[in-house]
Amino acid sequence: MFEKSLENLKKNPPLVHHITNYVTVNDCANIVLAAGGSPLMADDYEEVEDIVAISSVLYINIGTLNKRTIESMIKAGKKANEKGIPVILDPVGVGASQLRNEAIRKLMENVQFSVIKGNMSEMKALYTHAKNTGGVDVQEEHMIHDHNLDENIEFVKGVARKFKCIIAITGVIDIISDGEKTCFVRNGHAMMAKITGTGCMTGSVIATFCASNKENYLEAAITAITAMGICGELAHEKVMARSEGSSSFRTYLIDAMSLMDLNKLKEGAKIEFK
Amino acid sequence: MFEKSLENLKKNPPLVHHITNYVTVNDCANIVLAAGGSPLMADDYEEVEDIVAISSVLYINIGTLNKRTIESMIKAGKKANEKGIPVILDPVGVGASQLRNEAIRKLMENVQFSVIKGNMSEMKALYTHAKNTGGVDVQEEHMIHDHNLDENIEFVKGVARKFKCIIAITGVIDIISDGEKTCFVRNGHAMMAKITGTGCMTGSVIATFCASNKENYLEAAITAITAMGICGELAHEKVMARSEGSSSFRTYLIDAMSLMDLNKLKEGAKIEFK
Amino acid sequence: MFEKSLENLKKNPPLVHHITNYVTVNDCANIVLAAGGSPLMADDYEEVEDIVAISSVLYINIGTLNKRTIESMIKAGKKANEKGIPVILDPVGVGASQLRNEAIRKLMENVQFSVIKGNMSEMKALYTHAKNTGGVDVQEEHMIHDHNLDENIEFVKGVARKFKCIIAITGVIDIISDGEKTCFVRNGHAMMAKITGTGCMTGSVIATFCASNKENYLEAAITAITAMGICGELAHEKVMARSEGSSSFRTYLIDAMSLMDLNKLKEGAKIEFK
Repeated sequence: MFEKSLENLKKNPPLVHHITNYVTVNDCANIVLAAGGSPLMADDYEEVEDIVAISSVLYINIGTLNKRTIESMIKAGKKANEKGIPVILDPVGVGASQLRNEAIRKLMENVQFSVIKGNMSEMKALYTHAKNTGGVDVQEEHMIHDHNLDENIEFVKGVARKFKCIIAITGVIDIISDGEKTCFVRNGHAMMAKITGTGCMTGSVIATFCASNKENYLEAAITAITAMGICGELAHEKVMARSEGSSSFRTYLIDAMSLMDLNKLKEGAKIEFK
Repeated sequence: MFEKSLENLKKNPPLVHHITNYVTVNDCANIVLAAGGSPLMADDYEEVEDIVAISSVLYINIGTLNKRTIESMIKAGKKANEKGIPVILDPVGVGASQLRNEAIRKLMENVQFSVIKGNMSEMKALYTHAKNTGGVDVQEEHMIHDHNLDENIEFVKGVARKFKCIIAITGVIDIISDGEKTCFVRNGHAMMAKITGTGCMTGSVIATFCASNKENYLEAAITAITAMGICGELAHEKVMARSEGSSSFRTYLIDAMSLMDLNKLKEGAKIEFK
Repeated sequence: MFEKSLENLKKNPPLVHHITNYVTVNDCANIVLAAGGSPLMADDYEEVEDIVAISSVLYINIGTLNKRTIESMIKAGKKANEKGIPVILDPVGVGASQLRNEAIRKLMENVQFSVIKGNMSEMKALYTHAKNTGGVDVQEEHMIHDHNLDENIEFVKGVARKFKCIIAITGVIDIISDGEKTCFVRNGHAMMAKITGTGCMTGSVIATFCASNKENYLEAAITAITAMGICGELAHEKVMARSEGSSSFRTYLIDAMSLMDLNKLKEGAKIEFK
């Protein structure tokens, strides 16, 4: 576990095309660089096909979508499918508005995704068209804990089978599944929810690892999510040691990604397969 | 003072809908999280009513407005008024362009605001349609000092009465008034003007406190502005102790908000009513 | 060298109008403030002329251009030419898409630039219409080293003469030329490529210095680029001393700009004229 994903990324640093929101886009760019990739943000309808053509992966995040960028997402997604590069989706806040639901419906119809990553409220909205009143955060009744882990694993497997892609649910316990094999990751720290962008950055890191690991998206996604979780733990330790707060935490989280290596991953990982 | 505002915020962490600029939006999201709220940024015309429907407050900031988002602001503002949640306005750079003046005129015509926050140049432009050549910064002749405090208080009271809302002017001395009761706050540090986003973040924190304190917007605004000022002082102390610069200051400012509590507020506050 | 540029900037802190990308715009705003200017971001077609009218310089960066903002860039550029203020161009990622090529072609046709700043891949694309597959990063075959320095100097001089403006190429060795006099700067650190925004921030600082130094754009650009390079070195030292990573580096880079002075510039500068 982990060796190959890391090694492939180091050997082939990917160009990571983002069509993403303007809230956390800077954090996304910096975490891609920290992880070893090269970020490229471009969302104009006239341009996205050219950018996909030189990129190794496409990451679509609907955080601050608008009518203009929805069309760009679909066009870019189709082109990426044609070219055979992975496409990662973060359906931020789906279920919270008609526009997001419609955008996601169109995206799912037109694009085959390699990995869909979100919190459990987003994934329920995606799968069952349930309303999502948590906005971009998970609703309390959807949080993953030990007592509801088994039913959640079954749910995630079902979603993965339906959409024929890796499903990655992030939360207190992360669940990643390809419909057959399922992994849960117990890394991370509650402070990750106290800054904006943790989820988006996780998507960017998944995209970065998938780009260089086309043979094994499941392992790529697990590596990315475990790495993010360990970064959160290391950042939290540093903040505590220095009596600092949430913004320092953000800095140390990205710092930790830029200093991540195989040893830290292997020693820090708290993962289990089911 | 302060107890109730803090307690209500802790009991009812609000969803804070922002329609704001792309320059400081990440700082706004992080300071809302640091203060105890949950930020949500959405600006598409087709989506803003749905997002208002699940939010506890609407914050409108025209920092990088464009024709597309002006219409969204008006639509969202009307819906928020209908729903009875507070609407906060930051008329960034009003007076600096025809487009901003027109946008603000339309907003004031169509939306009843709960709090309008800006620097003195912006407020003069808003009230008297004066030209504003300072861009997003206050012009020197409009700065609030002890020697012009009394006349400024009268001006602010007049504006508050005219627009039937709380007016909050931030500067070396902050003035907050509902038209009857007026408070001035002497917290803060000059270094707050050396980073971008201090003003926008203050607006976000006001929105966060107002959302959970619908009975008393004046106290909510005073609490938010005092908290920001104290954070500025704490951040400055840390920067000086560590011989760091403006970007570290930004980090420590948000850190301080994430560590704010009733004691720090009560001990640090330099406020006076008139 | 340096004294006059710094002194003029201190005497006349400029309003720096940016039409720039949403990825690094916050960093740009903060570095302008750190350098001693006042940033102002505005990109709506209806507004840009009014904003140019109150500004001291216009900085155009096509990082995340779209059809809406391309028209704004041209309109603002023309107005700035009319008014006689400097216009700085950062042709981010030109050569990577038809849209960027077209935008740059139109900009070059309609606007006289004072300084064009980019990496060598971008400048080759600009001059020879070569394809640029590096995205926003320099392609390896275009990197400037000692062994290809002479031919690169000749190339840059030619570009400067053709476009009748200062050309500034940033890289391991920076080359700045007005077509006659050429300077190369050996300041900086490899870690500057490990965060997003270094290039954009350099453009913002060039704009800030040019605004206050209309008599000598060449010296203004050299001062800005040397200052950025020294900030990169100081930030790297601090990161090493504290065992931190790339995000701390970004913080310390902006910190260093806010603490820059004539002594540090004079002592740290590694520049040579040819």
